[in-house]
Amino acid sequence: MVVESQEIFKEFKEHSVAEFFKKNRQMLGYSGPIKSLTTTVHELVTNGLDACEAAGVAPDIYVKVEKLGTDHMRLIVEDNGPGIPKKFVGKALGTMLAGTKFHKFRQSRGQQGIGGAGVVMYSQITTGKPARIVTGTGEGKVFETHLSVDTKTNQPILTDEKEYSGKMRGTRIEVELKGVLYQKGEQSPDEYLRRTALANPHAKLTYIDPDNLTTVYDRAVSKIPPIPKESQPHPKGLETDDILSYARTASARSVKSFLETSFARMSAQKAKEIESRVSFDMNKRPQDLQWNEAEEIVKAIREMTFIAPPADCLVPISEDHLEKALKNVLQPEFFKVITRPPAVYRGGVPFIVEVSVAYGGKSGKAINAEDPTSERMEIMRFANRTPLLFDAGGCALTKGVQSIEWKRYDIKADVPITVLVNFTSVYVPYTGAGKQAVADEEEIIKEIRLALMDTGRQVGRYVSGQRKRYEREAKKKMLLRYVEPVAEAIADLTGANVKLAEKKLLHVVETKYSEFNEEAEGGDESNGSEENGNGKQEEDD
Amino acid sequence: MVVESQEIFKEFKEHSVAEFFKKNRQMLGYSGPIKSLTTTVHELVTNGLDACEAAGVAPDIYVKVEKLGTDHMRLIVEDNGPGIPKKFVGKALGTMLAGTKFHKFRQSRGQQGIGGAGVVMYSQITTGKPARIVTGTGEGKVFETHLSVDTKTNQPILTDEKEYSGKMRGTRIEVELKGVLYQKGEQSPDEYLRRTALANPHAKLTYIDPDNLTTVYDRAVSKIPPIPKESQPHPKGLETDDILSYARTASARSVKSFLETSFARMSAQKAKEIESRVSFDMNKRPQDLQWNEAEEIVKAIREMTFIAPPADCLVPISEDHLEKALKNVLQPEFFKVITRPPAVYRGGVPFIVEVSVAYGGKSGKAINAEDPTSERMEIMRFANRTPLLFDAGGCALTKGVQSIEWKRYDIKADVPITVLVNFTSVYVPYTGAGKQAVADEEEIIKEIRLALMDTGRQVGRYVSGQRKRYEREAKKKMLLRYVEPVAEAIADLTGANVKLAEKKLLHVVETKYSEFNEEAEGGDESNGSEENGNGKQEEDD
Repeated sequence: MVVESQEIFKEFKEHSVAEFFKKNRQMLGYSGPIKSLTTTVHELVTNGLDACEAAGVAPDIYVKVEKLGTDHMRLIVEDNGPGIPKKFVGKALGTMLAGTKFHKFRQSRGQQGIGGAGVVMYSQITTGKPARIVTGTGEGKVFETHLSVDTKTNQPILTDEKEYSGKMRGTRIEVELKGVLYQKGEQSPDEYLRRTALANPHAKLTYIDPDNLTTVYDRAVSKIPPIPKESQPHPKGLETDDILSYARTASARSVKSFLETSFARMSAQKAKEIESRVSFDMNKRPQDLQWNEAEEIVKAIREMTFIAPPADCLVPISEDHLEKALKNVLQPEFFKVITRPPAVYRGGVPFIVEVSVAYGGKSGKAINAEDPTSERMEIMRFANRTPLLFDAGGCALTKGVQSIEWKRYDIKADVPITVLVNFTSVYVPYTGAGKQAVADEEEIIKEIRLALMDTGRQVGRYVSGQRKRYEREAKKKMLLRYVEPVAEAIADLTGANVKLAEKKLLHVVETKYSEFNEEAEGGDESNGSEENGNGKQEEDD
Repeated sequence: MVVESQEIFKEFKEHSVAEFFKKNRQMLGYSGPIKSLTTTVHELVTNGLDACEAAGVAPDIYVKVEKLGTDHMRLIVEDNGPGIPKKFVGKALGTMLAGTKFHKFRQSRGQQGIGGAGVVMYSQITTGKPARIVTGTGEGKVFETHLSVDTKTNQPILTDEKEYSGKMRGTRIEVELKGVLYQKGEQSPDEYLRRTALANPHAKLTYIDPDNLTTVYDRAVSKIPPIPKESQPHPKGLETDDILSYARTASARSVKSFLETSFARMSAQKAKEIESRVSFDMNKRPQDLQWNEAEEIVKAIREMTFIAPPADCLVPISEDHLEKALKNVLQPEFFKVITRPPAVYRGGVPFIVEVSVAYGGKSGKAINAEDPTSERMEIMRFANRTPLLFDAGGCALTKGVQSIEWKRYDIKADVPITVLVNFTSVYVPYTGAGKQAVADEEEIIKEIRLALMDTGRQVGRYVSGQRKRYEREAKKKMLLRYVEPVAEAIADLTGANVKLAEKKLLHVVETKYSEFNEEAEGGDESNGSEENGNGKQEEDD
C-alpha cells in the first residue's frame, strides 16, 4: 500500500520549544531520579549566583532540600540578588529561551534561558503543582506568585498573584518534585554545593539537607570578584558567518568603521591593514557586505597578528582565591594552582583555563575498598565556576586531564590526587542543553594540557619525594633493627666495645639516611600551604 | 557598584529555537569537521528513509559527497519517497520543531522536526549558500527552490522558486558545507552507510564518495517491512502527568471511556477494574480529571496486570532480515541473532531490543597493530535502524553491552566479535538533540542484557570450541613430529619393525585427536550460516 504525500502532510504541525523539552526532558538533565534532583539544585543555584553577580552583590544563597515522600521532595532556593521586576517574573521563569543572558557576549553561568523554566516544568509534570516565586527588588514591594509553563505555547501561567510591602531584595523559588532520589555521593546536591563552594569562595552557601542537617560554607574571601565586562569577539577565530551576522545589525556607517568598533583588539590601524588586503571598497554599508567579501576579511585576519583578548571580560577564580578555597575545602598536603593567560577558540571566543592539582588531605576519590583497581584520582570539572557532575566521559575537560601521562610525573593510580579544572569563557560550548559537558575544541584541550603539564610536574616531584622519603625511612628503620645484633657480633669477633660499635654503626645509618633530608628545597618554588607544602626533589637513581 | 534589577532586565529578550541551535550548533552534532560531515549525511539519509517508509515505498537512496576544497564539500541526498507538497517544503526543511513526526506515537527515525532544518542552517552559516531542494509528489509537477532558515524567526526563506512538469516522485536535497573533513574510518559517512545497509536490508543505497568511487548496497531482502502502526501508550509505565495530558485533549465523554479508548491493552473490563480501585466517579469529563485522581489511576494500574504491548506498532529488523544483512555485510564465521519480545519503559513506551553477536569474517574492529591491548570487540549501536556513531560512552546501548562479563563466555579481548544492538521504539529517549546516544533507562539496559546473555553464551561456546580445536591440532602436529624418531627408538630397543611401530603410533595420535572432532553438534541449535556455522561444544577438561 502506497500512501500519498498529501495524506502524510495532513499531520504536519509546529511545536514549541517547551513541548520539545517536555517530551525530551532527559536532554535538560532530567533522566533518572538522582540526576533529576541535582539538576534542579544546579539550575536554581546557578541562577541565584548569576543574579547576585550581575548586580555586584556578594552572593548569599540558601538551599533547602526537604523530603516529603519516597521519591517526593521540596526544593527551596533563595538568593540575595537584585530580584526580578514584577512584569518579567513570568517570562524569566516560565518561558524557555527567554532571559537577559542568551544574546550577550558576557561570562555568566547560565547562557540559554532554559534552566529556570525547566525546573518549573519538571515540577509541574511530576507533581501537578506550580512553583511558588517570591521576589523583591528592594524598593519596598514584594511580589509573590504561583507559576507554571504552558508547554503548548511556551508561555507562563501566573496564579495567586500577591503584592505586599516588604524590604526583600532577592528571589525565592519553591518547587515540589517527584521522581527524584536523594543519595549521598558524587552526584548528590551535597557534592554539588561542596564544589560550588570550592569554585566560589566569595559566596556564602547555606544548605539544609533532607535529614535536616545544616551545612554552611562561609566566604573564604571577602572580596567580590569584579562583574565580568560584556566583551567583543576577538578577530582571531571569527568565521565568515559571524562577521556577516554582526554586520547585519551594525550601526556603523561603513564596513571599515564596523570592523574598528565591533571587535576586541581592533584599531583604526588594523582596519586599515585589512583594507589593504581585501579587493573591495570597505566604505560600503555593513549591511551590504557580501559573503565572499566577508570571507576576504576572515582570510586577511588569519594572516595578521592581534594581541590576546583583554582579560577584563573574563573573571576566573584566580590563583589566590583558588588557593584559599582549596585549603578551606580539601586541606591538601601539597598543591599547585595555575591560571593561564586568556586564549581564544573558534568563533573568536576568549577563554581562560585554570587548574589545580592537590595531593593529600581530603584530595582524591574515596577509594572502593573492594576493588583494588579503583583509581584514586578525582577530577573536578567546572565551567564558569559551575560544577559539572555528569557526562564526564564526553567532556573536553576530562579529555584534557586524561591526555596527560600522569605516570611520567610519578603520579600513579593509587596516589590521592584531586585535579580541578575551571573553564572560564563568555560562551561555554556545552554539548547539550543540560550543560554537563564541554564540547571538544582543540584550543581548550591544549590550554588544559599546558596548565596540567606544569602543575602536574611540580606536584609529581613532591609526591615522588614523599614516596622516596617513606622508602628511605622504611630502609633506615630496617637497618636500625640490625644495629644491635651486628654490634654484638663485631664485639664477639674483634673484642671491641659493644657500645662503641653500636654507636659507630648508628652514626653510619643516621648519616647515610639524613643526607637526603638535607637536600630538601626551599618553599619558594612551591605555593603549597606553608606548614607542610615543601616540595622535595630527588636525584634520579 | 550595585546594579539595579530594572537596569539588568532592560536586556530581557526572547529567542527562537533556530537562534538557540545556531549558537549551540554542537548540540545538533556540529562539533569538529569529521562529526559535522557525518551529521549532515545522517540527518538527510534518515529523512529519506523515513519518507519512503511512511509511504510504503522500498527505499532507494542516493548519496553523493563531493569535494570542493580542503574543508569544503557538497552533499546530495535523493530519495524515492512520496515527495513534499509544495506548500510544506519551506516549513518541513526550513523551520525547526515542525514536521509530521514529533507529536505521533509512532516508530520513525526522526522524531524532533529539527534535523533537516539543521542541515540547511549549517550549510548557510558555513558557506552563505542556501540549500537546493527538488521535490515531486508523482502527480506531474516538480518543485524546485533555494531554501534558507531565518534564524531570528525560525521561518524558512524560499528563493528562486520554480515549478515545471516532470514525473519525479521523491526529494533531492543539495547543500554546500564548509568546516567539514572527510576521513575514512569509524565515524565516516562510509561507515554510516555501511551500517545503515546492515540495519536496512530492504533499502538500496548508492554512495558516491569524495574520491568519486561508487558503492552500491543492494537490497538483501525484497520484502518491504510493514509500515509501523501508530500506537497508543501502554498503561504500565504511565505517569500522572501523561494521563492528564492525554485527558486534556481527549474526545471521550467520560474518564472511563477515555481510559478504554486511549491506551493499548485496555478493555472495558480493565477500565471497570480501575473504577473499582479509585475513590472518585469515573463518569466525569476527562477534562475535569484532577491531579490526585490521575494519581489514583496510576496507582491502580501499577497493581494490575496487562498483557505486553501489541507488536504491530514496532517493526524491528527481524531475525530473518538481520541474518541476511549480516551475511551480506560481515560474512561472519558464526553468529547468533535474537529479537526480543516487546517490553515497556517509563511513560508506557513500548520497545523491542534485538541483538546479534557475530564472530569471524569481517567481524570485530580493525586492530591497532602497534597497541597489543587494543580490543577487538566492535559495538554497533542502532536506534530504529539508524546507526549511532558518536557519544558511545554516554549511551544505554553501550552500557548494556558492557554490563555483560564477556570473559565468562570465553570471549576475551582478542576475539574478533561484532556486537550489534538495535533499539526499536515509538519514542527513542535520546540524550541530546544530535541523537547519538540513548538515555539510561533501566528496562532498556535489562532487555539488552537478557538478549546478550543468550546470544553471547552460544557464540562463546563456538569460539571456545574453535580455540580448543586449534590447540588440539597444534598438539597433534607436535606429536606427529615425534612419531618417526620414537618409532626408530622403539625399533632400536625392542627390535620391532620400524614401519609397524610408526603405523601404530600414528594410529594412536590420530584416534586420540579425531575423537573430539566427532563430538561436533548438529547445526540445528545454531542459526549461523550453513556452510561453516556449526557450533561445536567441548566437555570441560
